[in-house]
Amino acid sequence: MERLPGFRDFYPEPIPHKDVWSADARQYIFGKWREAARRYGFREYDGPPLESLELFTTKSGAEIVGQLYNFTDKGDRAIALRPEMTPTLARMVAAHERAYKKPIKWFALPQLFRYERQQKGRLREHFQFNADIFGERDAAADAELIALLIDTLRSFGLTAEDFVIRLSSRNAWQEFYERGVPGAERGTEGEYQFYQVIDKLERTPPEETEKKLAVLGFSLDIVNRFIEAGEPTVELKAMLDNLDARGLGDFVKVDYRVIRGLAYYTGPVFEAFDRKGEFRAIAGGGRYDNLVKLISGGKVNLPALGFGLGDVVLLELLIARGLLPQFDGGVDVFVLIEDETRRPDSLKLIQDLRSAGRVVEYSLTTAKPDKQFKRAQELKAAHTARVEAGSMVRVRNLSTGAERTVTAAEVGELIGLTNVLPHPGPLREQPSRFKP
Amino acid sequence: MERLPGFRDFYPEPIPHKDVWSADARQYIFGKWREAARRYGFREYDGPPLESLELFTTKSGAEIVGQLYNFTDKGDRAIALRPEMTPTLARMVAAHERAYKKPIKWFALPQLFRYERQQKGRLREHFQFNADIFGERDAAADAELIALLIDTLRSFGLTAEDFVIRLSSRNAWQEFYERGVPGAERGTEGEYQFYQVIDKLERTPPEETEKKLAVLGFSLDIVNRFIEAGEPTVELKAMLDNLDARGLGDFVKVDYRVIRGLAYYTGPVFEAFDRKGEFRAIAGGGRYDNLVKLISGGKVNLPALGFGLGDVVLLELLIARGLLPQFDGGVDVFVLIEDETRRPDSLKLIQDLRSAGRVVEYSLTTAKPDKQFKRAQELKAAHTARVEAGSMVRVRNLSTGAERTVTAAEVGELIGLTNVLPHPGPLREQPSRFKP
Repeated sequence: MERLPGFRDFYPEPIPHKDVWSADARQYIFGKWREAARRYGFREYDGPPLESLELFTTKSGAEIVGQLYNFTDKGDRAIALRPEMTPTLARMVAAHERAYKKPIKWFALPQLFRYERQQKGRLREHFQFNADIFGERDAAADAELIALLIDTLRSFGLTAEDFVIRLSSRNAWQEFYERGVPGAERGTEGEYQFYQVIDKLERTPPEETEKKLAVLGFSLDIVNRFIEAGEPTVELKAMLDNLDARGLGDFVKVDYRVIRGLAYYTGPVFEAFDRKGEFRAIAGGGRYDNLVKLISGGKVNLPALGFGLGDVVLLELLIARGLLPQFDGGVDVFVLIEDETRRPDSLKLIQDLRSAGRVVEYSLTTAKPDKQFKRAQELKAAHTARVEAGSMVRVRNLSTGAERTVTAAEVGELIGLTNVLPHPGPLREQPSRFKP
Repeated sequence: MERLPGFRDFYPEPIPHKDVWSADARQYIFGKWREAARRYGFREYDGPPLESLELFTTKSGAEIVGQLYNFTDKGDRAIALRPEMTPTLARMVAAHERAYKKPIKWFALPQLFRYERQQKGRLREHFQFNADIFGERDAAADAELIALLIDTLRSFGLTAEDFVIRLSSRNAWQEFYERGVPGAERGTEGEYQFYQVIDKLERTPPEETEKKLAVLGFSLDIVNRFIEAGEPTVELKAMLDNLDARGLGDFVKVDYRVIRGLAYYTGPVFEAFDRKGEFRAIAGGGRYDNLVKLISGGKVNLPALGFGLGDVVLLELLIARGLLPQFDGGVDVFVLIEDETRRPDSLKLIQDLRSAGRVVEYSLTTAKPDKQFKRAQELKAAHTARVEAGSMVRVRNLSTGAERTVTAAEVGELIGLTNVLPHPGPLREQPSRFKP
């Protein structure tokens, strides 16, 4: 039986086949995402992978249905697998925003689904790092969000030579549009069509763009001059100064060719790209100050901004730049059982070491000593340990070859320093409020 | 707009409402699951949440469709949201087992879905810790798996007074059945019906059980005597001895009332229960030596065993026993910006501290000093830091009240020890094989 087209199987490394993905690499990426978000004070949330279809059509219009995994459930509800996280987040924030101090800084690592017409190798699901801020109109929030995106990418070893955040603003384009169409009202169909043309600028032949712009009352020349000038708006200037103060100025540039296709952005927008231009956008985001009001049916009004960073392009980029590590199970010690009469004592040692937090492997059944040792090497175990006469344990460091005989109680300490790393930005546990 | 019935929203703590769940508690549970699995040398995998419907009906028969979230996709495929992980795992193992040394020890933390007739408050999704071993017929593998289950539960602070693993065996019941129905062939409908009666023994009035057993040629009395004797089979004896050697004997007992409803178990089976009997089963599992062969259409034949441990009953139990901690964002330092001319220097300090792995918060915009300090306290920040004249930084430990003035470079070290915990059983990174 086969898996569905467009879905991924994630296997432990080493990867057995080019057609499957690394579960270890996925967890590595998730770990970096979580750590970066926590360092920035973002808190984790999650919602259901299934939502009512209406939640998505309210935000994006009926056209989105063509791209969704949607169906009718046994209770006759029109539902869909989430194609993006923002509608769920807006719903959740609107429901309980009063319980949280502003600004709300939240993140999630959802799996998202799209059913687009099938193209060979095109995925129908991916994972995304979503980070959002609610309740702050000041550009300082936009800068904080972009700094998080930059530091997330930096945490993988990527530098300012590898990627850049192209910074733009819906406000800048809105003013430009209004100068071109004096007296135009906000949110007209014409304005939206204009944004669509700008969004496709880099992928469309100039003649075609020229024609489309003419219909809307603009020339390509005036659009190009606006882009080339790249004069930052007041809000973009504030963001650039803020990021400069953090020492992150090299990672951003104003680039008005970025406008983001979706209708709901309201202020600064941005996309992360690799500098060489080999890949699709790594991440994208911006302000959407009206969405919470829309989703909550007018009950809650909160300014908002956020970004989404997918796992697929990021993974391609890390591989291309030689930045994706290889993973193993991190075995601290392989316990050799060469004499079956020592199996009970060996099991006790194994139990004690695991209880002390060590990663321990051993042969479940009787096996020749050289086969056990070979297995320890295959697993890249840091040490072997063998219970000997008088319950003493012979420990061997497999990288230095050094051997020592110690008591069972001393083994943990002897091998202890191999894998003890500082824990980056953990959740801190408090005494339980549920304690009776 | 509302979320779908039976689905959960996960919010950061403190929880705003009794109707929502804690994302922090969920991540705490996931963390403990992952750490326990890694200490035991299990490696993580994952598969798609959507699979072809056939994968599930092949394993469990057409009856299962009534309990599934199943639908026809736009490509006219009969598909379903996974109700359990084992069919996906069997499919994945069968596809690439040759690339992995045996025994294969894998785990996953999938979200699973069931569409059962609606009952108030009944969930339609949950998360499950799945751990499985492939390629080992010896009872040593069953003992290793059960030890993992025990240590996973112990890692939450649960003891032998809180839970017990009830150990049983399909083989014992099969022999019992064959003694009662001499010459019976294996895998008959009668045998399966008999197991169903045993499975429901504790929830069915004795008269009813008596009647059902009579039809199958058994008396309740002989069944009860077999259960009361509880004579361990050879394989169960080996497992008990193995767990005893590890010092885990107190956590298991033979109890033939456990048989597991599903048709596909073939050997030892087990369930974890709270000692007080207040909750449904915490976890369950056993051997399923024929499933890989069935799912692979006869291509691959591998003995297998595994368990599933859900998040919902576990969470109820932890709360009831006062073992669920309360969580906060673990803020290491709140940077106070009381003078806006110092904001650039403060942003630099914030950036440096975050880059060094610290969790840092601050006020995005101008705020009164006492309001900033109050926010630091609300966030349970361990320290505050304030940039002063000459780029010196005044650091205050909020639990001791101690204050010190240090250079910006020294702040990280001063607050460094608060959150640095040993990292339990991490994946170890190796140099990338992708490096150009």
